Amino acid sequence: MSLTNASPADAAQAAKSASHILATLSAEARNEALTAMHDALAAARDEILAANARDLELARQAAADGKLSQSLVARLDLGKKGKFDDMLKGILDVRDLEDPVGRVTLRTRLDHGLELERVTCPIGVLLIIFEARPEVIANIAALAIKSANAAILKGGKESTESFVAISRVISAALDKTHVPNDAIQLVTTRDVISDLLSLDRYIDLVIPRGSSDLVRHVKNSTRIPVLGHADGLCALYLDPSADPALAAEVVVDSKTNYPAACNSLETLLVHDAALSTLLPGVASALAAKGVELRCDPASKAALAAVPGLKLVDATDADYRTEFLNLTLAVKTVAGVDEAIAHINAHGSHHTDCILTSDAQQAERFMAGVDSSGVYWNASTRFADGTRYGFGTEVGISTNKIHSRGPVGLEGLMIYKYKLRGHGQVSATYGEGEGKKRYLHERLPLEH
Amino acid sequence: MSLTNASPADAAQAAKSASHILATLSAEARNEALTAMHDALAAARDEILAANARDLELARQAAADGKLSQSLVARLDLGKKGKFDDMLKGILDVRDLEDPVGRVTLRTRLDHGLELERVTCPIGVLLIIFEARPEVIANIAALAIKSANAAILKGGKESTESFVAISRVISAALDKTHVPNDAIQLVTTRDVISDLLSLDRYIDLVIPRGSSDLVRHVKNSTRIPVLGHADGLCALYLDPSADPALAAEVVVDSKTNYPAACNSLETLLVHDAALSTLLPGVASALAAKGVELRCDPASKAALAAVPGLKLVDATDADYRTEFLNLTLAVKTVAGVDEAIAHINAHGSHHTDCILTSDAQQAERFMAGVDSSGVYWNASTRFADGTRYGFGTEVGISTNKIHSRGPVGLEGLMIYKYKLRGHGQVSATYGEGEGKKRYLHERLPLEH
Repeated sequence: MSLTNASPADAAQAAKSASHILATLSAEARNEALTAMHDALAAARDEILAANARDLELARQAAADGKLSQSLVARLDLGKKGKFDDMLKGILDVRDLEDPVGRVTLRTRLDHGLELERVTCPIGVLLIIFEARPEVIANIAALAIKSANAAILKGGKESTESFVAISRVISAALDKTHVPNDAIQLVTTRDVISDLLSLDRYIDLVIPRGSSDLVRHVKNSTRIPVLGHADGLCALYLDPSADPALAAEVVVDSKTNYPAACNSLETLLVHDAALSTLLPGVASALAAKGVELRCDPASKAALAAVPGLKLVDATDADYRTEFLNLTLAVKTVAGVDEAIAHINAHGSHHTDCILTSDAQQAERFMAGVDSSGVYWNASTRFADGTRYGFGTEVGISTNKIHSRGPVGLEGLMIYKYKLRGHGQVSATYGEGEGKKRYLHERLPLEH
Repeated sequence: MSLTNASPADAAQAAKSASHILATLSAEARNEALTAMHDALAAARDEILAANARDLELARQAAADGKLSQSLVARLDLGKKGKFDDMLKGILDVRDLEDPVGRVTLRTRLDHGLELERVTCPIGVLLIIFEARPEVIANIAALAIKSANAAILKGGKESTESFVAISRVISAALDKTHVPNDAIQLVTTRDVISDLLSLDRYIDLVIPRGSSDLVRHVKNSTRIPVLGHADGLCALYLDPSADPALAAEVVVDSKTNYPAACNSLETLLVHDAALSTLLPGVASALAAKGVELRCDPASKAALAAVPGLKLVDATDADYRTEFLNLTLAVKTVAGVDEAIAHINAHGSHHTDCILTSDAQQAERFMAGVDSSGVYWNASTRFADGTRYGFGTEVGISTNKIHSRGPVGLEGLMIYKYKLRGHGQVSATYGEGEGKKRYLHERLPLEH
């Protein structure tokens, strides 16, 4: 790892060269580097926490002056119970995942002695732009080394002292390993984001980790592919056949388990036949958790007699709003097709759910909704790489190519085709007389 | 299929809506549409060829006036022997490929009665920008319907009469099928490309089919992901251990089989120990096919005594040039690592080859070269979807994400996660006391 004051272009070019070496390292060499990184960080805990304390001091002053939010100060604090240990454990967790590099995903015999193989390989150079959490730097460095991608890291200025301290420790540790120094670079120069985002010649993928404003800004400022999502506008459709207790439980969890999360519920679509049967129970359960409902006229009328609800008239904008708090938009629909159309037009293609006991309705919904996650009778909150069993999460993507939904290490990989021959030439093959035909024989993936 | 004079935004929005319907059609419904399309085009041969003759007439006049190239006129001619029949057969070939939609690629039991499934689905709306070949419209419509993607087609103005005729026939044929009319749209309005390229809200992927200038222009003009390659700067590294006859054959095929193709050889890298042993034979074989060699001093000196060669001093620019004709740049390198570094720095990450009898050198080369195709003892000309056995080719991609190398139907697909539960909520699971653990049990892909 290097802590660079080089120009963005020089840093990116160096990262590209390093990526070509990193791509050829064995899994053992990459795992050893992760162990070295872990051990060095564990040994340098005091020094890193001291640096973090200096960041915190400044941040607290800024917060007191009203220039910084308290929640940002909290995110900055690496000394909080368990946080440093979690960071260390995260490195070993990533190390112990299955190696994503060099997996054979297709093998075809084109002709005798001419075999095509499709093999996973790293994408190349990642640019990770993140905000205040200092532990992200260790997490990202681990993911990059495990996946054999080089990475350029650009963190928020509030964590500079912490980043520099962590980066020095990682750098010294990696020096004794086979990972080239330029493979992981921390850019500390100010105001370089737009320069970095223009370097599509060297940088292959941008991963913004932070607020939806950050993601939106990055997406609008670069031609490099961006992995992530700006919004999580998740909807749930309540079919009349849903079980009432199940409906209340799933809606409450989806909305209130962690309202600020991207996989939390923002819009409830209710079949008109469920307005008087299911909605009152669901609404009461939500009200018990403090949720305010923004209702269309039909749903509001259906709830008029229910005591203890916070009801507000919905506007059109409410159906396009990611509230990220205890507010839920409610809308009446005539059936599953209207629900699907509403979600496809208003949603953010993140995660959407149907509650029903009718399998046909469920399958229709899951086929028709154009989102990365389509759920039947399960909370939208399950949309998460760790919950999906990926071991780690790079982010959640609402892109329509490459990776969609929670992205694990696989999302940092691409593939190459290896063709091994014995001097075969293309002129030999074809449809004409005297020409050979291709065999195109599918071979087992393992030798 | 509709022939639209709607605004680009309206056309794209209509395509998006149609894509959501198309995505839910069965394989049978999509295949029936392809049969209907084929039959209608076969029946309308005379009418289409008459329209094509009108395009040709204008094009021949333009060519006579020096305003159009003769090769473009040739590409325009749908009446050329076999061309119409190839177009028809292409539709049935695509129809008969394995259905790419709804393939399960991951199944995980998160908990009892809570199963996660990753299923392939179409990307959404494709924008295909192409130049003069009128048969492309049928080919693209077939690929889009087979893969359940909606497509907006924008063709070159020289083929307008042919496009309109083909599009009318396809439109009438699809009217009797389940494929929504707006799923395939031909835009005939002029000067709308920049408008279309700004519609990232509706269009998910752009596929430019034509010259590298077209591809470069499109890549530089949009934030929508672009599938394709601007350049094919393929290199071959000649190791001293290569078999001399094999070397001559593979280099000649790579360079001369079809010099204008993107998978043709442009740079020959020669190990210095092979300059006097292998290079003379290779150079003579190339000269016999009329190839001019642009040599660095060392390779020129090694060839000085060989009769019948066309030798020119190479400039730096020659090693970055896609000649697309019978010119080949030759450069001496000290070994495989220098060859890898040269290719990674100068190449276009398309297809590169090593000729050697040393397996270790070959594997080192294939691991180190950052290209979509890395070949050992085989012609670079094999880089092609049909030759790889994909049945069809959407294009060849040098992108680092999503699809790389020759792209078949698979490259037009993404996936979604379906989660089927029985009312599970996220609050139940976790590390704390009284919380359930996820099972994360990998399930077989087939039920």
